[in-house]
Amino acid sequence: MEKNNVPKFDLVSPSDFRYNVEQLMPYLSEEAFVKYKSLVESGLAHAWAKRGIISEDAANEIVAASEQVTAAEVYEEETKTNHDIIAQVNMIKSHLRSEGKSTEAELAVHRAATSYDIVDTANSARYRDAFYNVIIPDLIALETAWIKIAREERDTLQIGRTHLQHAEPVTFGFAMASFVSRFGERILHIKEAVDKLEGKFSGAVGTYGAESLFINDPIEFEKEVLDQLNLRPTQISTQITQPEPVVDMLHSVITSFGVVANWAYDLYNLQRPEIAEIGQPRGNDISRSSTMPNKANPVGLENIISLFKESMPSMVTTYLDQISFHQRDLTNSASQRFIPETLNIFDYAIRRATRISSSLSINKHNMQKNFEMSSGYVTAEPLQLLLSSYGLSDAHKLIGELSDAAQSEGKPVFELAKEDKALSKYLRRLSPEQVEVLSDASKYIGCAPQKVDEVTNFWEQRIQELSAEIDQALHK
Amino acid sequence: MEKNNVPKFDLVSPSDFRYNVEQLMPYLSEEAFVKYKSLVESGLAHAWAKRGIISEDAANEIVAASEQVTAAEVYEEETKTNHDIIAQVNMIKSHLRSEGKSTEAELAVHRAATSYDIVDTANSARYRDAFYNVIIPDLIALETAWIKIAREERDTLQIGRTHLQHAEPVTFGFAMASFVSRFGERILHIKEAVDKLEGKFSGAVGTYGAESLFINDPIEFEKEVLDQLNLRPTQISTQITQPEPVVDMLHSVITSFGVVANWAYDLYNLQRPEIAEIGQPRGNDISRSSTMPNKANPVGLENIISLFKESMPSMVTTYLDQISFHQRDLTNSASQRFIPETLNIFDYAIRRATRISSSLSINKHNMQKNFEMSSGYVTAEPLQLLLSSYGLSDAHKLIGELSDAAQSEGKPVFELAKEDKALSKYLRRLSPEQVEVLSDASKYIGCAPQKVDEVTNFWEQRIQELSAEIDQALHK
Amino acid sequence: MEKNNVPKFDLVSPSDFRYNVEQLMPYLSEEAFVKYKSLVESGLAHAWAKRGIISEDAANEIVAASEQVTAAEVYEEETKTNHDIIAQVNMIKSHLRSEGKSTEAELAVHRAATSYDIVDTANSARYRDAFYNVIIPDLIALETAWIKIAREERDTLQIGRTHLQHAEPVTFGFAMASFVSRFGERILHIKEAVDKLEGKFSGAVGTYGAESLFINDPIEFEKEVLDQLNLRPTQISTQITQPEPVVDMLHSVITSFGVVANWAYDLYNLQRPEIAEIGQPRGNDISRSSTMPNKANPVGLENIISLFKESMPSMVTTYLDQISFHQRDLTNSASQRFIPETLNIFDYAIRRATRISSSLSINKHNMQKNFEMSSGYVTAEPLQLLLSSYGLSDAHKLIGELSDAAQSEGKPVFELAKEDKALSKYLRRLSPEQVEVLSDASKYIGCAPQKVDEVTNFWEQRIQELSAEIDQALHK
Amino acid sequence: MEKNNVPKFDLVSPSDFRYNVEQLMPYLSEEAFVKYKSLVESGLAHAWAKRGIISEDAANEIVAASEQVTAAEVYEEETKTNHDIIAQVNMIKSHLRSEGKSTEAELAVHRAATSYDIVDTANSARYRDAFYNVIIPDLIALETAWIKIAREERDTLQIGRTHLQHAEPVTFGFAMASFVSRFGERILHIKEAVDKLEGKFSGAVGTYGAESLFINDPIEFEKEVLDQLNLRPTQISTQITQPEPVVDMLHSVITSFGVVANWAYDLYNLQRPEIAEIGQPRGNDISRSSTMPNKANPVGLENIISLFKESMPSMVTTYLDQISFHQRDLTNSASQRFIPETLNIFDYAIRRATRISSSLSINKHNMQKNFEMSSGYVTAEPLQLLLSSYGLSDAHKLIGELSDAAQSEGKPVFELAKEDKALSKYLRRLSPEQVEVLSDASKYIGCAPQKVDEVTNFWEQRIQELSAEIDQALHK
Repeated sequence: MEKNNVPKFDLVSPSDFRYNVEQLMPYLSEEAFVKYKSLVESGLAHAWAKRGIISEDAANEIVAASEQVTAAEVYEEETKTNHDIIAQVNMIKSHLRSEGKSTEAELAVHRAATSYDIVDTANSARYRDAFYNVIIPDLIALETAWIKIAREERDTLQIGRTHLQHAEPVTFGFAMASFVSRFGERILHIKEAVDKLEGKFSGAVGTYGAESLFINDPIEFEKEVLDQLNLRPTQISTQITQPEPVVDMLHSVITSFGVVANWAYDLYNLQRPEIAEIGQPRGNDISRSSTMPNKANPVGLENIISLFKESMPSMVTTYLDQISFHQRDLTNSASQRFIPETLNIFDYAIRRATRISSSLSINKHNMQKNFEMSSGYVTAEPLQLLLSSYGLSDAHKLIGELSDAAQSEGKPVFELAKEDKALSKYLRRLSPEQVEVLSDASKYIGCAPQKVDEVTNFWEQRIQELSAEIDQALHK
Repeated sequence: MEKNNVPKFDLVSPSDFRYNVEQLMPYLSEEAFVKYKSLVESGLAHAWAKRGIISEDAANEIVAASEQVTAAEVYEEETKTNHDIIAQVNMIKSHLRSEGKSTEAELAVHRAATSYDIVDTANSARYRDAFYNVIIPDLIALETAWIKIAREERDTLQIGRTHLQHAEPVTFGFAMASFVSRFGERILHIKEAVDKLEGKFSGAVGTYGAESLFINDPIEFEKEVLDQLNLRPTQISTQITQPEPVVDMLHSVITSFGVVANWAYDLYNLQRPEIAEIGQPRGNDISRSSTMPNKANPVGLENIISLFKESMPSMVTTYLDQISFHQRDLTNSASQRFIPETLNIFDYAIRRATRISSSLSINKHNMQKNFEMSSGYVTAEPLQLLLSSYGLSDAHKLIGELSDAAQSEGKPVFELAKEDKALSKYLRRLSPEQVEVLSDASKYIGCAPQKVDEVTNFWEQRIQELSAEIDQALHK
Repeated sequence: MEKNNVPKFDLVSPSDFRYNVEQLMPYLSEEAFVKYKSLVESGLAHAWAKRGIISEDAANEIVAASEQVTAAEVYEEETKTNHDIIAQVNMIKSHLRSEGKSTEAELAVHRAATSYDIVDTANSARYRDAFYNVIIPDLIALETAWIKIAREERDTLQIGRTHLQHAEPVTFGFAMASFVSRFGERILHIKEAVDKLEGKFSGAVGTYGAESLFINDPIEFEKEVLDQLNLRPTQISTQITQPEPVVDMLHSVITSFGVVANWAYDLYNLQRPEIAEIGQPRGNDISRSSTMPNKANPVGLENIISLFKESMPSMVTTYLDQISFHQRDLTNSASQRFIPETLNIFDYAIRRATRISSSLSINKHNMQKNFEMSSGYVTAEPLQLLLSSYGLSDAHKLIGELSDAAQSEGKPVFELAKEDKALSKYLRRLSPEQVEVLSDASKYIGCAPQKVDEVTNFWEQRIQELSAEIDQALHK
Repeated sequence: MEKNNVPKFDLVSPSDFRYNVEQLMPYLSEEAFVKYKSLVESGLAHAWAKRGIISEDAANEIVAASEQVTAAEVYEEETKTNHDIIAQVNMIKSHLRSEGKSTEAELAVHRAATSYDIVDTANSARYRDAFYNVIIPDLIALETAWIKIAREERDTLQIGRTHLQHAEPVTFGFAMASFVSRFGERILHIKEAVDKLEGKFSGAVGTYGAESLFINDPIEFEKEVLDQLNLRPTQISTQITQPEPVVDMLHSVITSFGVVANWAYDLYNLQRPEIAEIGQPRGNDISRSSTMPNKANPVGLENIISLFKESMPSMVTTYLDQISFHQRDLTNSASQRFIPETLNIFDYAIRRATRISSSLSINKHNMQKNFEMSSGYVTAEPLQLLLSSYGLSDAHKLIGELSDAAQSEGKPVFELAKEDKALSKYLRRLSPEQVEVLSDASKYIGCAPQKVDEVTNFWEQRIQELSAEIDQALHK
C-alpha cells in the first residue's frame, strides 16, 4: 500500500501540514473515522449477541476483524463498491474470511444497519472523544492561564478604552477577568453541547423496520447498541440523527473562538508601539520581518484572528445542512466531512493562545504612562455626577465644556473646576473621599479588584469540577 | 410632529410594509425601544429611592416623565445632541420641567448610568417580552398544529424517500413527528436562551466606578436595578453586557427557522403534481399565476424558505459582533439595531407555517399510489436481511441483482426470489410473519406508529408545561 | 387611505427611520417599485402599439392609467388577489374604467406578460436608476474627497505600520492614495455590473410562448419592449432573468463597502489618543459619552464599520438565490425584496464617509512624533540591505541583533553600526546619499509622493470621464 | 526526511484524501507554493542581472539553487526562523553554499524584497497557472458536454415547472441551454478575473524604499520583475497587493459553482421516481444503499451540491480579508492559505459534473407522460390571452375557473371552453394556428428550439476562441 503514504507537502489543506494538532488525529483523521465506524459495527455485534441473536463467539470474531480494518483498504474497496460503508463491511468480512472465521459472523456483520446508523453514531462518538480527551482539556488550560494573569494583574492600573478612546480606569486583571468569565461560560456551553451528541440505530428511514424483523423491541435494542459507545439515541430519527445537536456543538465552538479572537485583537492592539502595554518574547509567536530585522511581529495573535475568520463562516454550511429532504438527502455528506477540519483549527488556535498567554509580559510602566495621559480628564465623569447630585443643573454640559478647556490647556479638569467660582458652592459639599477620587483618578476603579476575585474564584472552582467530571468519564 | 407619520410605502424594508407582525411592535419597534429605555431609567430611579439616595417622590416623578417620552421627540433632540441616550435623558428632564417637577428629580435622571447600562438592559427586557408575549406562544401554536397532523396521520402509509429515491415505507404522521421532535427541542432551546438574557448596571467600563461614588455595594445595587425588570446581571461586564447570550438567542432562532424551512421544503416537494401527496386550499398561501390561471402556486411555503435564506446569514454579523475592542467599541451598535428585524421575520414565517399547517389536506390516495410504485422492490431490504440471517452469503449483492431484474420486469422482488431455486432453502426458513412482510411492504413500517405516540405525547405535555410557565411568568 | 400613513417610529427596520437616504426612495421604496412596474407595463403597451397590435390611443391610455396606480391601492387589492402583479394589473384596469377609457386598452394591459417579465425588468431599471442618479455620484464624491486629502498630504511623513508595528515610513497622502486606487477600481466595477443588469420579456417559462400567439418574432419584440427602459434582454431566460447579474452587482457593492470599511478602521485607529494622528470636529460623527463628558467618540467611523458587518453577510443569501428549481421557484422572491435595504445602507455609509472625509484634520505634529519613536530603528532595513550588497554575510541576522541593542539602548541603529568595527569596511562603501538615508529615515520614503501624483491624476481623470458618461446617460 | 511522507488517511481534510484533483497539485499544493516562491526569487535575480546590479552568473546560480529548494527543508528551517520566507531564503543560500557558489549570489538572494513581494506574486502566478492549465479547460469540458445535450434534446418536449408546479412546455434542450448560457458567462467572468490577478515588488510598505537604494526607477523595475512571471503590478500597494482581484476571482468561482449546483439540483429532482425524466448508469455517481440493494442513489449530484454548500460561505472570509489595518496586518495570512482548498473542491465538482453529464440518459417517454398530465390545462394561458385579445373581459378569472373545472373533471380546458356558449363568439375568431395550439399544448413551445440554436452556437464559438486563447498563452 505504498501509495497510501503521501508526501506531506503535496497536500492542499493547511490543516494537514501547517495547523495540524497531532493529538486530535486519533479522533479526527480519516483513519480514525474508519476505526470509529468499526467500533459501531462491533457494538452492534455485541448487542446482537446479548440478545442471543448471534453467538458470543461470532460477536467476538466481528470485533477482532473490525479492529483490523484500515482506511487504506476501505478506500481501495470503495473503488469497486462506490459506497464507503459497503466497502467497510466488505473489509470486515474479508478479515473474517482471511482468519478462517465462522460463516455466522460473516453473515451477521452490519445486520439490520443502514449506513448512517454507523456514520452518525461514529461521528458523535469520535467528536465526543476528541472533546473529552483533547479539546476540553485544552480549553481548560487556556482558562487556567487567563485566571493566572487576571489574578497577577488584579491591581495593575490600566486606562479603560471605549470607542478606542480613553474612558475610565480599569485594572488589567479586570480586563482579563472579563475574558475568563466569557470563556468559562463557553467551555460549559461546549461541554453541554457535546454531551447532547446522539447516535441512532433505527434503520434506513428511522422506523426500525429492519430491526423489527429480528426483535420485538427495537427501540430498546437501539439503546443497547448505543450504550456500547456511551451515547444516547436521538428521540426520533429519519435515516440520520437530528441535525441540531451537531449544529449546536459547532455554534458553541465558533462562539468560543469568537471570545478568543476578541482577546487576541485586544492584546494585538495593546502591543502597538504607541501603546506598548503588553509584550511577548521573540519566538514562535513573535517573528522578525524578512526585510526589516528590527521588527517584532505578533504573528501568533494574528494567526488566531485569521483562523477565526477562516472557521466562522462554516456555520453557514452547518445551518444549510439542517435541511435534508424527506427521510434525508445526501447533500450534507461531503460538507460534514469538513467538520473535523474546523475542530482541528479551533484547537490549534486554542493551544496557540495558551502558549502566548503563558509568556506575556505586562509593561506596567507604559500602562501607568498611558493612564496618566488622561488621568486629569477622566475625572470629568465623577465630577459631573457628583456636582449634579449636589444640585448643579446641566452638569454634563458644563463639565463637558470644562473638559474641553482642560484638555486644551493640559490641566486636570478638577483643577479648572476648582478655579470656577460658579461651582464652588457645589464643590464645597464634596466629602474627603470624593475629593480624593477627583484628585486622583487611579482611585476611580470601583469594584474592579473585587470582581477579579469573584470571577477567578468562581471559574477556578467550576473548571476544577469540570476537569474532575471529564477525568471520571474518561476512566470509567 | 406631522413628519413623523410617513407614507407606509415610501419605506424600503419589507419588514415594515409586507412582513410585519403588528403584535410584535410593542417590543420591537423603535418606539418600543424608547419605551423600554425609559423603563430602565425608571427602574434605576426606583432603586435609588429604595436606597434613600433620592426621595420616593423624585423617583415617581421620573417614572411619570419617562412614560411621556416619545421616539419622535428623542430623535428630534438627537439632532442637537448627536447622542440618542443623551437625547432621551434630556427629554425626560424636559417633561419634568414642563410638569413643574422637582429639581431633585431632574438631577437624578440617569444617575451613575452609562448609555449601555440602559441600552443593553432595555434590549434584553424587550426581546424577552417579545418572546414571552408573542413569539413563544406562536411557536407553541405551530408545534400544536404539527402534533395534531402527526396524530391524525399516524397510520397513513407513505413511501419514505432518501436521496429523493423511494426507500422503505413510513407513515406521514411519522414524518411529521420528526419535525415535532426537532421543533420541540428548538422551542426549549429558545426558551433557555431567552431566559439567559442579561442586563447590566456597572457603568462606563464595567467597574461600577460611578456607582461607587454614591454607595458601597454597587454589585448588590446592580441586582436591585435589574430586579425591576426581572433580569439578572451579566457576571462581569465591560461597557456592555457579555455578547454571547444574544448570539445564543439568535442561534436558537435561526436553528428553529432551519427546522421550519426543512418542513416547508418537504411539503413544497410533496405538492409537485407528479407526487401530489399534499394539498392546500387556494388563498393567501396558494395563488394563481398572473398569466397561467390554471396554476396553484404554493407561495406560502416558498415565502417561508425565502425568509429563512434572508435571515440565516445574519448569524455572521452576530458572530462578528462578539468582537468588541477593549472595554467596547461601537461597531456592534448599528448592526444590532437590525436584530428586531430578524425576530419579526422569523415570527412572520412561524405564523405563516401555522396557517398553512392548519389547512393542509392529505391525499392518501396518492400516498398509496406512490407507495405502490415501489412496494414490490422496497422489500429487497428485508429480503436480503432475512436471507442473510438464514445463511445466504452475499445476500446484498444477489438481492441487488434480483431487484434490478424485478424492476425491469415490473415484478415484485419477492416473486422473483421465490422463482429462484438457489434461494429456496433459505426462503423455506422464513416465518409466516416474515413472509407477510415480504409479500406486503405496507407491513414493513417497524415502530413508526408507536414513535408517533411517544413523540407527540411527550411534546404535548412538554409544551403544556412550557405554556403554563410562560403564563405564570406573564401574570406574576 | 389614512392607514397608509404610519408613525415613523412604529417601524422595525432602522433603514426606515435611522439610516434612510431620502434621495434613494424614488427608486428603492415600495412605492417606487410599483411605479417602475407600471413603467414596464407602459413600455409593453407602447411596444404593442408600435407593432400595430393595439392602437396608439390604447397604449397612451394604459400609460396614463399606469401612472395613477399607487402602492396603497395595489396592496389593498392584493388582499383579494393574493398576487401582487395581478393586483397591479387590476388597478391599472380600474383606473382605465374610472376614466371611462376604451375596452381595447383594458384588454391589452399586461398582454402576454408573466409576472416576472414585469418584476425583474422593473428591478433592473430601478436599481440602474438608483445607481446612476444617486449612488454613483455619491461614490464619486467620496473618491474626490479622498483624492483631495491624498494630494494635500502628499508629503506628510507618517510611520508605516505592518502587523500594527512600526515599519518603514510612508506619507499620509500615500496611504490615502491606496484607498483612492482601490475605491476607484470598485466604482468602475460597480458601473460595469450595473450596466449588465438585464430585463426580460419571454413569458412564463422563457420560451416566448405567449408572445408567439401574437407575433412571429418575439425575440425581436422583447428587445423593443426593453428598449423603452434602456435595458438589454438576458440571453436566455426561464421565468426569470439570469440571476448572476444581480449577484455581480451586489458583489461589487459589498467589495466597495469593504474598501470603505478598511479606510474607516484605519482612521478610527489613528484617532486613538496614544496615536492621535487624525482628528475630527465634534458634531454628527464625533459625539460625547452620555456619562463621560470629556470623551470624543468617533461614532461616524464606527457606524460605517458596523453597517458593513450588517450588510456583507447578505451575499450568502444572494449566492443561495442563484439556485432556482427548474424554470424557477419563488424562494428567491422575499429575499430579493431586501436588496433595496442593502443598497440604501451602503449609500448611507458612503455619504457618511464623505462627510467625515471633508472635515478631517491631520495632526502632522503627532505624525512626526510617532515617526520619531522609531526613526532610529527603521533604518535597520536599508542598513542590512546595503551592507549585504556590499558583501556582509548574514546581514539580516547581524543587523537584527544590532537593532535589538539599539532599541534597548535607545540609540539609532546606524549609530551603533558606526561604532561596530567589524562593519566599518562595509560602511566605508556607502555613498553620501545612502549615508543620508541611514542618518535620516524621513528620506526613506521611496516613490511615495510620485505614486500619489500618479494615482490621483489617473483617478481624477477617470472619474471625470465616468461623471460625464453618467451625465450624458441621464440627459439623453 | 522520512517523516515528510505521511499516511494518507492520517489526514483531516477531505481535500487531501477524498476530493483531491491530482492535476492541480503542481499549482495548489504546499510544495507548489514553495516552488512558485522560488520562481519569484529567480525572477527577481534575473531582473537585477538585467540591470547590471548583479552578474548574470550570480542570477543563474540563484535560479539553480532556488529550483532545488523543497517544502520539507523550508518547513524544517522555519522551526528555527519562525518565518517561512526567511526560511526559504536561507534554504536558497544553503543550496548555493552546498554547491560552492559565489558569495555574490548568496548576498543577492531576496534583495530589496519584502516577504509579500514574494508571497502575493507567487500566489497570483500559481492561481493563474492552475486556471489556465487545469480549471478553465475543465470548465470548457463541462460547457461542451452541456452544449451537446442541449443540441441533442433541442426538440425533446418537457413540461416546464415553476413553483414546482407544471407551467408551460419547454424542451429539455432549452432547459439545458439556459445553463449553457449562464455557465458560459461565468467562464468568461472567471477568465477576466484571473487575468486581473496582480503581483507586486514595492517593498515593505509599498513605497519602493528598499528598491530606491539601488535604482532610480523602481516602479519600472517592478514591471521588469513581474514580467518574468507574466504578471502586471498592482497600481499602488501597501505591503501587499490590493485584495480585490483575489476576492473577485473567488466570487467568479463561487457564482460558477452556484450555476452548477442549480443544474445538479434540477437533475437530482428529475430523477425522482415519480418524475423519472433523467437517468444515470450505476457506478461512481449512482450507488446502491448499504442496506437497500434495490436503490439507485444519485450520490454524484448530491456530492456536487454538498461541496457547493461547503465552499460558498468562504466568501465571507474573503470579504473580511479585504480589511487589513494600515500598511497591512497579517490576519489575512492563515485564512488565505485555504484558498487552494476552495479551488481544488470547485474543480473536483466540475469534473464530477462533466462525468455525470457525459453519461446521462434522457427518458423521453416519461417526459412525454409528465407533459401529458397537464397538457389539457396548460393551454389555459394561451386561451385566456387569446380570448382577452378578442375582447373577453375578465379572461384571467373566467379561464381560471374553467381550469379548475377542467382539472376536477379531467377534461382539457379548451374542451370545456368550447362547450361554454358565452365564449363562442370569441372562440369563433381564433385562427387555425391558434386553435392548433389550444388543441395541442406541445405546439406551445414558442422559440425554444430557436433559442437552443442561438445559445449553443454562440457559446460553442465563444469557448473555442477562449480555448485558443488559453492554448496560445500556455505555449508562448
